[in-house]
Amino acid sequence: MSSPEAARRALAARVAEVASRGAAAHQEEFGQLAARLARRGVDVEALLARLASLRIAVPSWALGTGGTRFGRFPEAGEPATLFQKIDDVAALDALTGANGEVSLHIPWDEPGDVAAARQYLEASGVACGPINSNTFQDGARPNDPRASWKFGSVSNAFEEARARAVDHNLHVVDLGARLGSRALTVWLPDGSNHPGQHDFRGALDRTIDSLRRVHEALPPGWSMYTEHKPFEPAFYSSVNPDWGASLLVARELGENCRCLVDLGHHLPNANIEQVVAMLLRERRLGGFHFNDSSYGDDDLTAGSIRPYRLFLVCCELAAGEADGLVDDHPLDLMIDASHNIKDPMEDILQSTEAILLAHAQAFLVDRAALRAAQSANDAALAQEILQDGFRTDARPLLREARRRKGAALEPLRAFREIGYRAEAAARRGHARATGL
Amino acid sequence: MSSPEAARRALAARVAEVASRGAAAHQEEFGQLAARLARRGVDVEALLARLASLRIAVPSWALGTGGTRFGRFPEAGEPATLFQKIDDVAALDALTGANGEVSLHIPWDEPGDVAAARQYLEASGVACGPINSNTFQDGARPNDPRASWKFGSVSNAFEEARARAVDHNLHVVDLGARLGSRALTVWLPDGSNHPGQHDFRGALDRTIDSLRRVHEALPPGWSMYTEHKPFEPAFYSSVNPDWGASLLVARELGENCRCLVDLGHHLPNANIEQVVAMLLRERRLGGFHFNDSSYGDDDLTAGSIRPYRLFLVCCELAAGEADGLVDDHPLDLMIDASHNIKDPMEDILQSTEAILLAHAQAFLVDRAALRAAQSANDAALAQEILQDGFRTDARPLLREARRRKGAALEPLRAFREIGYRAEAAARRGHARATGL
Amino acid sequence: MSSPEAARRALAARVAEVASRGAAAHQEEFGQLAARLARRGVDVEALLARLASLRIAVPSWALGTGGTRFGRFPEAGEPATLFQKIDDVAALDALTGANGEVSLHIPWDEPGDVAAARQYLEASGVACGPINSNTFQDGARPNDPRASWKFGSVSNAFEEARARAVDHNLHVVDLGARLGSRALTVWLPDGSNHPGQHDFRGALDRTIDSLRRVHEALPPGWSMYTEHKPFEPAFYSSVNPDWGASLLVARELGENCRCLVDLGHHLPNANIEQVVAMLLRERRLGGFHFNDSSYGDDDLTAGSIRPYRLFLVCCELAAGEADGLVDDHPLDLMIDASHNIKDPMEDILQSTEAILLAHAQAFLVDRAALRAAQSANDAALAQEILQDGFRTDARPLLREARRRKGAALEPLRAFREIGYRAEAAARRGHARATGL
Amino acid sequence: MSSPEAARRALAARVAEVASRGAAAHQEEFGQLAARLARRGVDVEALLARLASLRIAVPSWALGTGGTRFGRFPEAGEPATLFQKIDDVAALDALTGANGEVSLHIPWDEPGDVAAARQYLEASGVACGPINSNTFQDGARPNDPRASWKFGSVSNAFEEARARAVDHNLHVVDLGARLGSRALTVWLPDGSNHPGQHDFRGALDRTIDSLRRVHEALPPGWSMYTEHKPFEPAFYSSVNPDWGASLLVARELGENCRCLVDLGHHLPNANIEQVVAMLLRERRLGGFHFNDSSYGDDDLTAGSIRPYRLFLVCCELAAGEADGLVDDHPLDLMIDASHNIKDPMEDILQSTEAILLAHAQAFLVDRAALRAAQSANDAALAQEILQDGFRTDARPLLREARRRKGAALEPLRAFREIGYRAEAAARRGHARATGL
Repeated sequence: MSSPEAARRALAARVAEVASRGAAAHQEEFGQLAARLARRGVDVEALLARLASLRIAVPSWALGTGGTRFGRFPEAGEPATLFQKIDDVAALDALTGANGEVSLHIPWDEPGDVAAARQYLEASGVACGPINSNTFQDGARPNDPRASWKFGSVSNAFEEARARAVDHNLHVVDLGARLGSRALTVWLPDGSNHPGQHDFRGALDRTIDSLRRVHEALPPGWSMYTEHKPFEPAFYSSVNPDWGASLLVARELGENCRCLVDLGHHLPNANIEQVVAMLLRERRLGGFHFNDSSYGDDDLTAGSIRPYRLFLVCCELAAGEADGLVDDHPLDLMIDASHNIKDPMEDILQSTEAILLAHAQAFLVDRAALRAAQSANDAALAQEILQDGFRTDARPLLREARRRKGAALEPLRAFREIGYRAEAAARRGHARATGL
Repeated sequence: MSSPEAARRALAARVAEVASRGAAAHQEEFGQLAARLARRGVDVEALLARLASLRIAVPSWALGTGGTRFGRFPEAGEPATLFQKIDDVAALDALTGANGEVSLHIPWDEPGDVAAARQYLEASGVACGPINSNTFQDGARPNDPRASWKFGSVSNAFEEARARAVDHNLHVVDLGARLGSRALTVWLPDGSNHPGQHDFRGALDRTIDSLRRVHEALPPGWSMYTEHKPFEPAFYSSVNPDWGASLLVARELGENCRCLVDLGHHLPNANIEQVVAMLLRERRLGGFHFNDSSYGDDDLTAGSIRPYRLFLVCCELAAGEADGLVDDHPLDLMIDASHNIKDPMEDILQSTEAILLAHAQAFLVDRAALRAAQSANDAALAQEILQDGFRTDARPLLREARRRKGAALEPLRAFREIGYRAEAAARRGHARATGL
Repeated sequence: MSSPEAARRALAARVAEVASRGAAAHQEEFGQLAARLARRGVDVEALLARLASLRIAVPSWALGTGGTRFGRFPEAGEPATLFQKIDDVAALDALTGANGEVSLHIPWDEPGDVAAARQYLEASGVACGPINSNTFQDGARPNDPRASWKFGSVSNAFEEARARAVDHNLHVVDLGARLGSRALTVWLPDGSNHPGQHDFRGALDRTIDSLRRVHEALPPGWSMYTEHKPFEPAFYSSVNPDWGASLLVARELGENCRCLVDLGHHLPNANIEQVVAMLLRERRLGGFHFNDSSYGDDDLTAGSIRPYRLFLVCCELAAGEADGLVDDHPLDLMIDASHNIKDPMEDILQSTEAILLAHAQAFLVDRAALRAAQSANDAALAQEILQDGFRTDARPLLREARRRKGAALEPLRAFREIGYRAEAAARRGHARATGL
Repeated sequence: MSSPEAARRALAARVAEVASRGAAAHQEEFGQLAARLARRGVDVEALLARLASLRIAVPSWALGTGGTRFGRFPEAGEPATLFQKIDDVAALDALTGANGEVSLHIPWDEPGDVAAARQYLEASGVACGPINSNTFQDGARPNDPRASWKFGSVSNAFEEARARAVDHNLHVVDLGARLGSRALTVWLPDGSNHPGQHDFRGALDRTIDSLRRVHEALPPGWSMYTEHKPFEPAFYSSVNPDWGASLLVARELGENCRCLVDLGHHLPNANIEQVVAMLLRERRLGGFHFNDSSYGDDDLTAGSIRPYRLFLVCCELAAGEADGLVDDHPLDLMIDASHNIKDPMEDILQSTEAILLAHAQAFLVDRAALRAAQSANDAALAQEILQDGFRTDARPLLREARRRKGAALEPLRAFREIGYRAEAAARRGHARATGL
């Protein structure tokens, strides 16, 4: 097997070869768009630089085919080891120039040899983004009623179960620190399945009490993210159901705790962009899990259902950035979409493209004109201004940013052309379908 | 016209006459229930006393037939004046023994002569509950773009419109103080109808800035309630969309501001009882607007769609009371349901019955056993305990509490039997249908 | 006052003058896009012709500022008469080249002199689209319990109320026939506000029985549209709540009855594009009411909240057209969005633009490639193909189609530049705000 | 091991022993209720007989602890074999007198020896209710792209996958016939996860074509049930998303196909009782899967979240029965709730109790009075009549019906007292937690 460095070079060469074929058509279309934008006063180079700086972290768990409670149908060539996952992230980054960060999940990504894992990350050019704890499964003592997380982890009525959940989080922080991460994402399965099961206030008290012990143990420079979700796996109540609860928890925990927004974790019809604005106002927005959703789900490709909402969220981010609200804490942008039927890497490529596109369109919005329309109560004009950004075909900008990094013009097409999956399948074989 | 006192006496006599007919059957059924409850250790007399102490305020605006944007079909005999509204509230209280408080709405209930209004209230035995400001209509300067509330009141981008909204609220507080009220309810129409119209953060800043001036002017002993609502009349965003925002606003305004929960003001599937628990935990729950809702509406009879949810909310109130979380501020319980097709007073009688029934059932829950089940993670048993309260037919308790007050055993039936509406129609005539 | 013909000529001249200023920039951008599309095999001229043939009917009721049950804030210059409404439609058509059809609403648009109204329509170049009956208000006998529509119209338990509703619909058909319309749209307010009020089956039986009498009286060549809506003004049940009921009713009524889809009349998360596909499959799709919606509302500007959904609906229409499913009945495309805070004509211009844009993007989808991807279960590629259509900035195509008709390049901007509203305000004055 | 017959007798004796302790208190309470009901004209004996005739089928898959995609935490003593599942159903029936029917799921319950399975069912006094096919998992050829059900079963674009799905259903029908079942329930996982993946009309065509082959092969006297669900496991569209589609499919398949309503398979805010009424009107209602739901889930204990809705559904069933709409096809009443955190049998006992209670309350509704109120447009009175049924504590009726059958007065309490689970755990051991 070749070294990660050699693999990177080989991959880059193949990506460059594919890219060269579309270069002429791209240059013409980009040139036309750049000229139009320049005439409207857009600083195209600054825009390209900002786009080039965006980094969309890849969730390790989305590198394999997702599943539902009804079954899972994996593809050939999915990664089986942490090293293989890192390989896939490096390949994604070679294609997009924007995916050079992985978000690990413990215990799924528990490295046997931490130093070797860190070395492999570095050799692969992959940074270790926010790291995730997992208290929704319980490999250790599932059948011990006092210690199991069946009835919750940090909120459990049983002290022993809570202590184990705190310990697990402390372990994840320790691991993350050794791997170069700077943040812990705490998504909790805790909640109740029917009225009466939970004493709502008591469960929230216990949750805060448990997480405080984790927050106090954060290494210097670290952040902790609370992630709200109204339901699933608990189907009647969650201990952290919405942004209001998430903010409440973050404030009680302390200044290094911020709120993470997963686009799929909201009630029907929720105005998520306003939630983002309010968390920005409170300077407690930590980052995102990007995905899309049609019903109560949270794993569809980002931008595949409601691309305009994704754009509106990015508009709030651009506004918050312009107003200095993220100066002291750059946002962590992560994908959290684990698709059941697409090639997992293709799904990540499509999510990444949608997220970058929404950012580009948001950057194209004439913010000064928008503020003026808002101040004049000119609703129709304000809408025109936003829609003008959204309706602009900003794809040539993304291609140009990628071209300058040596990445692919069309990442999904390139992924297919270079035959990455077929090669991986030949090397890695086929995982078993589950739910059989 | 007879004096309010004489009218009260006459009404009470008619109600008592009707009640006497069903007394024997009631006594038998109540006796059987009381015996069963006593065997289970329930202190029936204490329970009756607690039930008798509940006061459900009547919203003045619900005394006339409600409407939709499509039309309104009023009944004969609806009240046209503030005095007539007070008469109706006194009549409701004569029937239920629980409705001796009115919640006024300004400018709809603007009294010409404040002293006379207060005197009439007192003579009628009707207390002045929380008073409501109204900045969603604008009789003063609707066509003046700088001053109109078309684009919002306390959040408006135009300073003059905001100033008028603050002034209106100050006027309402002053009026309420002279009428004996102790609380201002601020429900805001402010929001936006499409993406881009509002600068979310700016609108919230202006809202808080405006309301702070109202909060600072509250008389001693007064409270101010912020009332969240996700949408309507604004259909894309509201400045106070949910409990998280409401709590945020209340905290920024100061210690006399609390959150009011309207059961109809939540997104689909929201767990309202948990919201109530969280506001209790923060000691910021101020009171309720009771109604029910099937879709995005907020005007159906309390308990007519989801009576179990009403019960669960009351369980949280009972728990909060038991835990001392409302000691420093008794909750204001109000109806806010303005029915389009029922006789308005009949609708209030049905709402009142449902609210009292839910409280009675919540009081019947064995809280010690529930806590024990919760502490043991015994979800099935916890459910049994709650359901046992809900499944108990607690109506005999309500009847007994009313009987002891000289109110009706069956308020709705008595309302029909005494012919209140027909008599009112004869005196008051018929309002015009609108939307024609 | 000038004749309609003279007014049209004058307006056209002003629009042309404004358009001439942006002509050069447009030609460059259009030329670049046309070249790119041609290289991909798109027949640009055929596409322009198809776009030019689209006609988006204007609802007469949306020419004035909409309201909520909380109030209404009209603008200066709104039309007060049927003739003024026709003037506004003619002006919209001068700007867009796509709005030359009005959808009337009776009794709101009841013409005193039908022949004069028809003459004015023809002189104005405005066609009479589907005509709407209104049984949700009741100007005739609102206080007569046996005849009023308070408890429903065609489904009412009282025979007299039903008979009046049938008569009203027959009158509307007669009127429409004399004005040149070819279709009746029946949106019903009928439903119930709480459990128990309606015998669901009986109410549906009566509805079908009533509407059958209308269907039987349709003139030759006419269609009748049933329009489903889950709630409002009835808040617990509607007699025609969803597409399933609408199809059931249409089939029982007969072959000239089809279903009309209003985008705002669905439960949260409904997959509307699939509903459209199923109605197309049954050859029972009649047409659309276009708008957008965030919560339970139905009056936001088309494409302002979920433009991708609008595109997906248009993709189904394009597919149905390609498969010959609308050959025997061209779809009626109408706006039904009555905005509360925008200039009503500006809102219609924005809706029209969004609808045309979505159609253009749908026409750009490579349907042969899409079918191939679907047949290969290649979900990622299928998504790429759809998104490529949506992400293309098709606005130059719309501008070119307008340019060739002598309409405006940028209708909203032109509307402001020609000063239409200010002039109308000077002539027409200011309507009263309501809900005061 | 004892024979099923001996086990039944032993269990019955233990249940009877427990029941005897509460007999006196029950008799007093029942007597009081019966006297009150008799005074109101209720034929208590007829009511008891109707209640005693209700049979609530137990789903075999709910006898083990349910799971989410995040994990599963089984209990000790869960059944591992078909015989053990039948034992559990027999035990449930011994406790409730209403659960003597099992609904099997193939391949999960594939019997090695069909004759032995049938014999065991008969010896256990357990009938074989509707049998379920499963095409959402794929143990046979998951990795064969042309044959796998990854992209759908009966709707799959690939012919081979469809043929396998048809064959599986034919096998299930054959198996069911040999086990004494009379109905096949077809719940389909088929759908799409993102726009573009499915040709909606083509997928529906293929679905109907495949199922027609199953329908044609039904043995005499058999029914086939189509079960709609808006989403999950497909998260953008389902081939049978709602009752409208389900009815459309059932009609195209033929007269032996009816629609099955699962209470958890509806969009937010759907009026399920109206759906039931409409299917009854069309004489196409086949049966139910009872459960409850807070969000987008479908596995909570029946009646645990919205007991009033369960009651309203039962009111429609009672009305349909009274109107002769189920004469030619008695409804199949099944539980489909697979709880994650309760003892599975306790959960079924709670669901059964809630379903029976809702039926009893529905039977108590004075239908003649309700019809009269509906015919008079007396909405308030109609509500009173329904609520009177719901607010009545009908539990003594259920206990009496059970007492007369020798079942338990309080099934859940009795289940705990007789120590069934502990004994099963001792015999059966502990299943592995999954998702680890």
